[in-house]
Amino acid sequence: MNYPSKVLEKAVDEMANLPGIGKRTALRLVLHMLNRPSSQTVALSEALAQLVNGIQYCQHCHTISDHEICEICENPLRDHSIICVVEDVRDVMAIENTGQFKGAYHVLGGKISPMEGIGPGQLTIQSLVDRVNKEQIKEIIFALSSTMEGDTTVFYLYRQLKNSLIEFSTIARGLGIGDELEYADEATLVRSIQYRVPYSESKF
Amino acid sequence: MNYPSKVLEKAVDEMANLPGIGKRTALRLVLHMLNRPSSQTVALSEALAQLVNGIQYCQHCHTISDHEICEICENPLRDHSIICVVEDVRDVMAIENTGQFKGAYHVLGGKISPMEGIGPGQLTIQSLVDRVNKEQIKEIIFALSSTMEGDTTVFYLYRQLKNSLIEFSTIARGLGIGDELEYADEATLVRSIQYRVPYSESKF
Repeated sequence: MNYPSKVLEKAVDEMANLPGIGKRTALRLVLHMLNRPSSQTVALSEALAQLVNGIQYCQHCHTISDHEICEICENPLRDHSIICVVEDVRDVMAIENTGQFKGAYHVLGGKISPMEGIGPGQLTIQSLVDRVNKEQIKEIIFALSSTMEGDTTVFYLYRQLKNSLIEFSTIARGLGIGDELEYADEATLVRSIQYRVPYSESKF
Repeated sequence: MNYPSKVLEKAVDEMANLPGIGKRTALRLVLHMLNRPSSQTVALSEALAQLVNGIQYCQHCHTISDHEICEICENPLRDHSIICVVEDVRDVMAIENTGQFKGAYHVLGGKISPMEGIGPGQLTIQSLVDRVNKEQIKEIIFALSSTMEGDTTVFYLYRQLKNSLIEFSTIARGLGIGDELEYADEATLVRSIQYRVPYSESKF
């Protein structure tokens, strides 16, 4: 594609660097930016510049935060003896959204993935080991996706931490609430039968 | 959704202002930006800032250009007596990509659309009328999409310009090269039969 303007081409190229955005979509987005009030594009440009300079990670649980220690880690009303280990900040947001979990988090920043060249050293695993050694932790909940990489990461973490007097758990796998049995995939169905729970009226 | 950081939230909000990008996609993109080398996000931010300040439109045909008069309008090898009227710069790029059209362009900047509150005054129609009055124009090709708005715009332009000694044409509508007849929509098929062209071997 030949662009009639270098300024246009540069903007399209940079937008097309984002995952899932091709050259065509990038061009559509950039032309949209040119047709809307320029203040909105200035705001976007500044927000991205701010993102690079202004983003901080909680030094304790490594979630994205505007402070050195995030609101969850600082909150005395939360149970800091339970750590929910997640991959990234999206998982923290999803769990926080339910309003049901009152423990603390530890954000790994990814999963161990030899295919993508991500080893344990690039994740915040040592920081989790330090937390476990320093703090009174009762339970660690592994809330990672049940992919090969997720399972590998959980297994690695478990081996690193298993000497301590901690209960380990993973989030329950099974059919989603409202899912039809006949459409469930085999692996999920097998798992949901294997890990069946005693029926009690009080749960409903 | 509750964001753990205002910086993050602002970036997500601004990205989600773009068409076709929801909050979830915006968050995914922003987290991707945080995981890649920050120089790339700085480059994106600067390209967008540059877009606002540095973009220019050709004063003659209104396409996006880095100069006051674009390369096509300035090119003495092109036939400036033929103007191809298009909606936006993407159409110019698509036609230029074929390498077959040697005339000039006029970029309207949109279509007349009462539904979206776009009247003739917001488009570069007066500028086209001025070109026709000042220059020796032999032919005007309407290359607008065949939607209600496109047809309305063509009709309006034709009424504005029809007193002059100019040939008017629209790009051919019909089955695409390689299209199967049985899958063509009715309107296109009817049109392709109505506007059939004499068979000549030399065209192949």
